[in-house]
Amino acid sequence: MKKFAVILSGCGVYDGSEIHEATLALLAIKKQGATYDIFAPDMPQHHVINHLTGEVMSETRNVLVESARIARGKIAPLDKLNPALYDALMLPGGFGAAKNLSSYAFDGSAMTVNPLLKEKLTEAHNLGKVIGALCIAPVILAHIFDGIKLTIGTDTGTAADINSMGARHIDTPSGGVACDKENKIFTTPCYMLDGDIARVAESCENIVKAMMEVM
Amino acid sequence: MKKFAVILSGCGVYDGSEIHEATLALLAIKKQGATYDIFAPDMPQHHVINHLTGEVMSETRNVLVESARIARGKIAPLDKLNPALYDALMLPGGFGAAKNLSSYAFDGSAMTVNPLLKEKLTEAHNLGKVIGALCIAPVILAHIFDGIKLTIGTDTGTAADINSMGARHIDTPSGGVACDKENKIFTTPCYMLDGDIARVAESCENIVKAMMEVM
Repeated sequence: MKKFAVILSGCGVYDGSEIHEATLALLAIKKQGATYDIFAPDMPQHHVINHLTGEVMSETRNVLVESARIARGKIAPLDKLNPALYDALMLPGGFGAAKNLSSYAFDGSAMTVNPLLKEKLTEAHNLGKVIGALCIAPVILAHIFDGIKLTIGTDTGTAADINSMGARHIDTPSGGVACDKENKIFTTPCYMLDGDIARVAESCENIVKAMMEVM
Repeated sequence: MKKFAVILSGCGVYDGSEIHEATLALLAIKKQGATYDIFAPDMPQHHVINHLTGEVMSETRNVLVESARIARGKIAPLDKLNPALYDALMLPGGFGAAKNLSSYAFDGSAMTVNPLLKEKLTEAHNLGKVIGALCIAPVILAHIFDGIKLTIGTDTGTAADINSMGARHIDTPSGGVACDKENKIFTTPCYMLDGDIARVAESCENIVKAMMEVM
């Protein structure tokens, strides 16, 4: 049975993992006969956003503890992830990918990536594992890996940032998957393009299917 | 187009709405050609549970604000829900249904229900609207409506509580839906029975299908 490591960044689109993308990625993995474990870094969130008003709240939350909400408690700290034990790593989107796992939301193409995540992704890639990323999370891969092809949909500003970091952005429509089979890197826009949860579910099914074809 | 009002109780299985059930209910509604609006009561959560450790955290969170994470910000306070404008009301599960929307987790069959929720459910029922509930949420319906048939799966203790409140519990397997067509009340066990997200997705599809057949 093929095994995915899903890496979360909190719980909620504006300061963590996008909940629908994370849930629908897990669903797509199970529906296609694979299994998953869930990981997240044990670190403070960049900030906490009130998802009703969009405003910053004066409290602190932990990425691993909040990600555990999506994982129903079945989650491990990212330092416990051994990429050798998995066929694939999957990064759902949400601003957590751009605020907690990386600094893209604040620094654009001058971004940094959480060192532990960079280490795990690099190790997985060097072992020939498959890597998938949804929504805005592909910017993390653009920062780490030279010359890969990927997509965040069609947003020209983000695409320019991706190209300036040495990756190549492929405009991709809703539901589509950018497949860099040579590098085993797969990306799909999800909520970067589409407000419809049923289309996001299709995107998650499509990317998992494409990833499993090269495992 | 048929329209559902989905009522949330927070964000996370141990102190709010079960995230997968809520997300997969929204997905099932969209996939079957209907639409939804999301509501939650504007009130403090009973408590906040650390989903990594299961322990109570010394902080306060608001049910509406946390539910907004699942709703991606598109949510209204429960007092704004006008049941006349919807074909159906849907209650996902999670302990929020038994801790925030009602006191079932603490008081068993001597439970109380949030008065505003009771008012909205009663109004919807009196208007002949369809009501659906997942997982543990059916206990709320058992408390409010006399003589209805419903399920929470096969848990004998909870089933006895339901029967003692004047409803009739129907043992129902994973994926099954208890259909009380006379009262237009539909219930399905989801995570009360099954740890598999793909089965929960099927349960959500099955209950939405059954509900739409009587609209």
